[in-house]
Amino acid sequence: MNNKIYRHITSDGDARRGEVTTAHGKIQTPAFMPVGTAGAVKALISSDLEECGAEIILGNTYHLYLRPGIEVIKKMGGLAKFNSWNKPTLTDSGGFQIFSLRDIAKVTDEGVKFQSHHDGSYHFFTPESVMEVEHAIGADIIMAFDQCVPYPADEKLAQLGVNRTFDWAKRCVKRHNELLEKEGTDYSLLFGIVQGSTYKEFRTQSAEQIVSLDFVGNAIGGLSVGEPKDEMEEMLVHTIQYLPKEKPRYLMGVGYPEDLLMAVSHGVDMFDCVLPTRNARTGYVFTSEGPLIYRNADYTFDDKPLDPNCDCKVCQRYSRSYIRHLYNQKEITGIILATYHSTYFYQKLMQNIRKSIESDCFDLFRKEFLDLYSTNGKR
Amino acid sequence: MNNKIYRHITSDGDARRGEVTTAHGKIQTPAFMPVGTAGAVKALISSDLEECGAEIILGNTYHLYLRPGIEVIKKMGGLAKFNSWNKPTLTDSGGFQIFSLRDIAKVTDEGVKFQSHHDGSYHFFTPESVMEVEHAIGADIIMAFDQCVPYPADEKLAQLGVNRTFDWAKRCVKRHNELLEKEGTDYSLLFGIVQGSTYKEFRTQSAEQIVSLDFVGNAIGGLSVGEPKDEMEEMLVHTIQYLPKEKPRYLMGVGYPEDLLMAVSHGVDMFDCVLPTRNARTGYVFTSEGPLIYRNADYTFDDKPLDPNCDCKVCQRYSRSYIRHLYNQKEITGIILATYHSTYFYQKLMQNIRKSIESDCFDLFRKEFLDLYSTNGKR
Repeated sequence: MNNKIYRHITSDGDARRGEVTTAHGKIQTPAFMPVGTAGAVKALISSDLEECGAEIILGNTYHLYLRPGIEVIKKMGGLAKFNSWNKPTLTDSGGFQIFSLRDIAKVTDEGVKFQSHHDGSYHFFTPESVMEVEHAIGADIIMAFDQCVPYPADEKLAQLGVNRTFDWAKRCVKRHNELLEKEGTDYSLLFGIVQGSTYKEFRTQSAEQIVSLDFVGNAIGGLSVGEPKDEMEEMLVHTIQYLPKEKPRYLMGVGYPEDLLMAVSHGVDMFDCVLPTRNARTGYVFTSEGPLIYRNADYTFDDKPLDPNCDCKVCQRYSRSYIRHLYNQKEITGIILATYHSTYFYQKLMQNIRKSIESDCFDLFRKEFLDLYSTNGKR
Repeated sequence: MNNKIYRHITSDGDARRGEVTTAHGKIQTPAFMPVGTAGAVKALISSDLEECGAEIILGNTYHLYLRPGIEVIKKMGGLAKFNSWNKPTLTDSGGFQIFSLRDIAKVTDEGVKFQSHHDGSYHFFTPESVMEVEHAIGADIIMAFDQCVPYPADEKLAQLGVNRTFDWAKRCVKRHNELLEKEGTDYSLLFGIVQGSTYKEFRTQSAEQIVSLDFVGNAIGGLSVGEPKDEMEEMLVHTIQYLPKEKPRYLMGVGYPEDLLMAVSHGVDMFDCVLPTRNARTGYVFTSEGPLIYRNADYTFDDKPLDPNCDCKVCQRYSRSYIRHLYNQKEITGIILATYHSTYFYQKLMQNIRKSIESDCFDLFRKEFLDLYSTNGKR
């Protein structure tokens, strides 16, 4: 299975409509993966995710390794069984978490020594140990261990990140293949990650290096870390030309609806981001008319749904007034309602993107979506 | 409608099977009402409650009056519409909250001056103002404003509570009738509340006083406030004989499954309690085999459902191991799963109680339930 997991269905310009096959099922692309950091998409249960149309969810290796620990997940039958999702899953490699938590991590060529954010205990991640952890967690798609550098990064640091990412990628491939042989399966699909900060020459170098290792899928990492949006697009456009079209292309940690549309237009197939779920917990939902800060006093007496154009079960039943009240009272029910809506909104967006590519009208769809999406901003 | 809301279906000993009719629909009794303090049953959405089989939910007047305030609820069409439940609702009168928050409340014959737990602002509740607030909130069943005294209470305090509760009840009836006339409806069903602490003579006195006011339903208040269980039962048995059989009888704030069974055996029709939902949030669920402290390390590797004999959607899909992990990670999803199960468990218990009364085998059902329910305790 490992050598051909992507089936191309059709294209509209550079936008691609495809299908990725994993041991737990197929994923229609372009796809957006809700983030289930500790094994659950916060405030949702599996049936909510199914209702919303999600086909794959992401788990964070760093978090799952610390709690509940791989022994638990392994004994419970792997991530998809442990969290009763039973559909495709993907784990990141912990590289991005270490980037986020770099104050409590020490990175060397060998690997990363870091302290648990739970109890301060010390741990050591190497490319080899991360492969072992990801195999134990048992996601369908696993990511190579990379070094993501902060933005802005000087040339020296950016080059270091590229070199180390390549070195670690090779070590990941080696251990991954040993593990596959030992397990006697080809269950885990390993994706490589391209780094290079915001330097085109480093992006080229990293892409060529990563592609040379013949991963079953390739990801663009190190973006959406604080750089301006036009720089993100420039780097994406530059990098993606080096990534083989017969394999899935995954833009990590992106993003806002407008970012997804932009990236799809350049041929990206997969996305993940905490925005829809995290923002829902802070009083902010995504709607067809743009972001809605539903916690605002403006909505005290507003009996409209969060999104008047949405057919999700929350918008069919609940008012802004009620959800705002629950948010202000710190009621979990309010967080559930907001999270459900935004998750549904993202999945519906991806569904509409896929349909528009199939109908050769992606550009029109994008324009119309963005026109409506600017409504709230115009007020 | 007000004069005959209870239809008696059948009895088994003193246990009664009936039906209460309200403007938003019928309630099969004996019934357990999940508590939605601020207008939402914590960590559940309306469709969860429907799936669990709840037919009526309770809102707290004290909380709803402070936030979002009656102006919002009134403009949004009343409580059942505001919280998108659209089925029967009941509001307490705030009397019990004032009992709970007595450190920041001053009670006189006229009413209660209290401070908001949100912002320290001062408010004054009188029997008249509480009726106005409850009418504005618009629940189907509203409770008279009473004075609940702490346990233990000396005779003087208990007598004071009885006298004041009767005086306030008369004032509630008067204002309630004025409001009904003004509104031109008979929508709100007013229940009286019997007090009397743990003194039989005061219970008799209070019951006779309250019954004399001819409420459409009667409640037993002032129990489950810290007294021993046998004293609670003694007071219940003593009090309920004074409450007319042609009207619903509601035991407020009770309780554990064994308490519900005990009270049903003496003829109680309605219950409310935060136990199933509150305990779920602290790592404790109710199961057919007894309480399960699901947060315990014992369940780290336990792939069984919370309750092996439960057919709820949580027990069909999720393991103790997973839910325990989520609890430990403070994941909202864990709270949702535990709350859903315990709410389902309580509704299923009431359903089985109703069936057993219909089949004239309530005592056998109670015995078998309690035998199995002691399993976890025996371990």
